[in-house]
Amino acid sequence: MKDNTIEKVKLEEKFGLINDHWNPRIVGELNGQQVKLAKFLGPFEWHHHEHEDEFFLVVKGSFKMELRDKTITLNPGEFLIVPRGVEHRPVADQEAEVLMFEPATTINTGNLPQSERTRTNLETL
Amino acid sequence: MKDNTIEKVKLEEKFGLINDHWNPRIVGELNGQQVKLAKFLGPFEWHHHEHEDEFFLVVKGSFKMELRDKTITLNPGEFLIVPRGVEHRPVADQEAEVLMFEPATTINTGNLPQSERTRTNLETL
Repeated sequence: MKDNTIEKVKLEEKFGLINDHWNPRIVGELNGQQVKLAKFLGPFEWHHHEHEDEFFLVVKGSFKMELRDKTITLNPGEFLIVPRGVEHRPVADQEAEVLMFEPATTINTGNLPQSERTRTNLETL
Repeated sequence: MKDNTIEKVKLEEKFGLINDHWNPRIVGELNGQQVKLAKFLGPFEWHHHEHEDEFFLVVKGSFKMELRDKTITLNPGEFLIVPRGVEHRPVADQEAEVLMFEPATTINTGNLPQSERTRTNLETL
């Protein structure tokens, strides 16, 4: 790889291009994993991922990760790893900007049947 | 996995436990990858990783990633992915707090012979 194709990514700039919610965009790829950005607002769906662990880091705003046994509130500069198999539902009372790190194979709605919330063929920003 | 073993991580709190430089600590594991935190200060060594891409996100401060063809300055909220095989040298004129994602197998000094800067058996915070 030529050095001159390597560029940094400014999170604020990329989030500025996102005008919807629960629609992850790819902003980086490494080792078969992807770095994704999404804006969260309102409640998402309960779901789990059979084979993939998910990393969520709040960049701006905050959201609650509901698990079956407890709820964890995530603020800027805080991250959570949801291990494979664990049911979870993110809920954002106000808009949150979230960086995710997960395998390239991960679908946002996990085990659920495909719905209007399911995102495949994610856009790369 | 029991939900009640799942806890969030506050970056500021973890960085507060780090009092040295160029000594990555593990703060999370997912999908065979690790989330690491380190404080950078001064110049590191030129090196590359044969089989691993590396992700660097600046949380506080700033540093320069020197590549053979150019230098990229990273500020808070900016990340860079250094692809496998690309020679690089991080240099921090002032202290920087950096989050890294990389495979669990990655050694900080990459292809270099083991030295006093090499860190193996990383501490988990």
